[in-house]
Amino acid sequence: MVAGLVTDLYELNMAASYLRRGMSGPATFSLFVRALPPDRGFLVAAGLEDCLTALESFAFETEDLDWLRDAGFDDATVRGFAGLRFTGDVRAVPEGRVVLADEPLLEVTAPAAEAQLVETVLLNHITYQTAIATKAARCRLSAGDMELVDFAFRRTHGIEAGMAVARLSSIAGFAATSNVEAARRYGLPAAGTMAHSYVEAFPREIDAFRAFVEDLPGPVTFLVDTYDTLLGVRAAVRVIQDMTLDRPLAVRLDSGDLVALARETRQILDEAGLRKVRVFVSGGLDEYDLERFILERAPIDAAGVGTRVGVSADAPSLDSAYKLVAFGDRPVCKLSPGKATLPGAKQVWRHFPIEQDVLALREEAGPDGFEPVLVEVMRNGRRLGSEGTIAAARERCVRDVTALPPDVRRIRGPSSPRVRVSEGLAALATRTARSAARRQDLTW
Amino acid sequence: MVAGLVTDLYELNMAASYLRRGMSGPATFSLFVRALPPDRGFLVAAGLEDCLTALESFAFETEDLDWLRDAGFDDATVRGFAGLRFTGDVRAVPEGRVVLADEPLLEVTAPAAEAQLVETVLLNHITYQTAIATKAARCRLSAGDMELVDFAFRRTHGIEAGMAVARLSSIAGFAATSNVEAARRYGLPAAGTMAHSYVEAFPREIDAFRAFVEDLPGPVTFLVDTYDTLLGVRAAVRVIQDMTLDRPLAVRLDSGDLVALARETRQILDEAGLRKVRVFVSGGLDEYDLERFILERAPIDAAGVGTRVGVSADAPSLDSAYKLVAFGDRPVCKLSPGKATLPGAKQVWRHFPIEQDVLALREEAGPDGFEPVLVEVMRNGRRLGSEGTIAAARERCVRDVTALPPDVRRIRGPSSPRVRVSEGLAALATRTARSAARRQDLTW
Repeated sequence: MVAGLVTDLYELNMAASYLRRGMSGPATFSLFVRALPPDRGFLVAAGLEDCLTALESFAFETEDLDWLRDAGFDDATVRGFAGLRFTGDVRAVPEGRVVLADEPLLEVTAPAAEAQLVETVLLNHITYQTAIATKAARCRLSAGDMELVDFAFRRTHGIEAGMAVARLSSIAGFAATSNVEAARRYGLPAAGTMAHSYVEAFPREIDAFRAFVEDLPGPVTFLVDTYDTLLGVRAAVRVIQDMTLDRPLAVRLDSGDLVALARETRQILDEAGLRKVRVFVSGGLDEYDLERFILERAPIDAAGVGTRVGVSADAPSLDSAYKLVAFGDRPVCKLSPGKATLPGAKQVWRHFPIEQDVLALREEAGPDGFEPVLVEVMRNGRRLGSEGTIAAARERCVRDVTALPPDVRRIRGPSSPRVRVSEGLAALATRTARSAARRQDLTW
Repeated sequence: MVAGLVTDLYELNMAASYLRRGMSGPATFSLFVRALPPDRGFLVAAGLEDCLTALESFAFETEDLDWLRDAGFDDATVRGFAGLRFTGDVRAVPEGRVVLADEPLLEVTAPAAEAQLVETVLLNHITYQTAIATKAARCRLSAGDMELVDFAFRRTHGIEAGMAVARLSSIAGFAATSNVEAARRYGLPAAGTMAHSYVEAFPREIDAFRAFVEDLPGPVTFLVDTYDTLLGVRAAVRVIQDMTLDRPLAVRLDSGDLVALARETRQILDEAGLRKVRVFVSGGLDEYDLERFILERAPIDAAGVGTRVGVSADAPSLDSAYKLVAFGDRPVCKLSPGKATLPGAKQVWRHFPIEQDVLALREEAGPDGFEPVLVEVMRNGRRLGSEGTIAAARERCVRDVTALPPDVRRIRGPSSPRVRVSEGLAALATRTARSAARRQDLTW
């Protein structure tokens, strides 16, 4: 992927103008979500790792510069782009932490052209990854003791998204992924069973079950719903008993009334003395189904959760924004109806349990007993430390999510903790809005 | 991207078993969508190009094989994987054509292990790209003479998806994209205006407008809603008149009541004698908004359509499936409740206008006056011809979509053309289901 042109044309236009005018005074942009989607009381921050990688490698290649020249950018501008790297500072919410509406997920301070050019990539990674991490965390929240496995890869929006979903669902507490390349890349447990095609490729279902056990050494999950599900369970029982298997075993239900079938399946297994054989379900599931399984006390041990998490089906995007909050020493805001912004570089202060965050100016002191949520992650274009491991992000996710009040953690119609605007920020917002209104005086 | 492990673990498990048993007899898999999402009367086929690229490059690298060995696959299996390439045949619906529920988008015939291993990647590309191409086509259908520009890149699910969305929206008839890398890669017109940050970076709005005109040679679209929208329009008018601009000009409305603001804006521009200055709108739009603009006769010339198309917001995935329909000479089907499949390799026959397609066995002759929809695109692992240009796909899309009856093209509550199952296919389905039911006989 060539970094320099991986942006929107208007970023290049604006950057060209800033370079031409020497408007290099540092600009601070704040990336935040204006409003939470329906049924979301909180978000789980994600996408930062990919943002930092993109910022570190940001540059225009020769072929990018050729394209820009052909597209009409003048020589001085193209020369300006040629030397451009990202040299700014970044503060951000570490991946896995809870974030609320209006709270910055990330703030960039850099020369205006640089800060502008990276807008598209930063919004892209943070928006979809935060949406998906949130959906996965909601699944984990609603699933009780059930083990969850990421089955999303076949219906994510591309291969890159599939890798991200495996990583994000691991941050949210999923136990494994079906995505083998992601398992290798991120060191995650890989999990997989068999498809209906495998069962159909053999003369009888039971032949397929036997062949699978003979050919593969590891755990076995028998897919039992290719024909009649309960007959399939009996075929699995027969194979398990005939072959005296001593490895982790499960049967997988992928269609029909999963709660009823799980009960009947559990009964068949128990009557055969196979109490340790687990019941695994799949098929278009998300947090609403998982919650129902728990409420109905279905004897389900594990679930493959795929498509709906992998695209965050009920909230596939977020109302994210990357807004200029200061230019040089001057705080700025826009006044667009429904899209007005708060000026100034900010910090979020949090205490536990998370009943009310405080959104303050960066230089303000936090209230007693509150901890700052944004941390410095990049200085002068260089990444600081490493907050980047999946395990660390998972710990942060567990810590924050378990600190949310029960009505915030609710899957349906949750409330959201209040985000209180500090006195300093409120005063600056009033002053800045007043001066913004004067910026349209044509007679000035 | 390393191809061999870009799959689900169960594909590797099944492939290992097929290789071990010498079950190389050709398997035919059919990729189709079981049911159309709400408010969809048709789909626009897409994703084939990426599928063919993936199939051509399919192979296990040394590091893939190392991972497989570490994961417990035995030496013979790993050696089997080492030599594996995709050597099969593919027939598919060319990109841009209309497809309906149950109609194969793609059929693979290959040695069982190969056909199985590529399932995940084929489903991935076809599913999301078809969902997005369909959403974009619906926007184009509902937008009358309005010009549409792809603004999705900042909120697609990753960079790869952003590139795909630019390409797919061009197939659907969008005029340009904001995504610069996609514009270069696919030879598309790039379009862009300015952001609110640019306006805020200057002392006054009008200073920003003047600077942009001075610094950039091409068309100018003034973003007028940073502060008060109609005052912004007057600032743009002042700049256009003072600087006697002779290039394509527009003002862009990005917030508020777009229909009312477009009317007031048009009036201000017309009263200033600026009839050629266009009104451009943006801000969370999709086909439902575009249809409303047309119905309310809003004086809107062009729209930036982004997030909701880029994630196909109301249908971010499709109920797609990749199902075994024949193994060797034997047609197969599954009987799972709600997910039963039709056996055998198929062809779709279509006549114009598209009131009823016929779904038949591949070897059956089509009805008089009908044309076949699936074409051979790959033989023995080699791509045939090139159906791959965006322009050709756009022509196919226009031809099919304009041939749909009005009630199918409706944005809300459309009907869908009937897909009639041929006599040959119906008879085979009955026979195969009957024999499938016998595949669970444990006493056999």
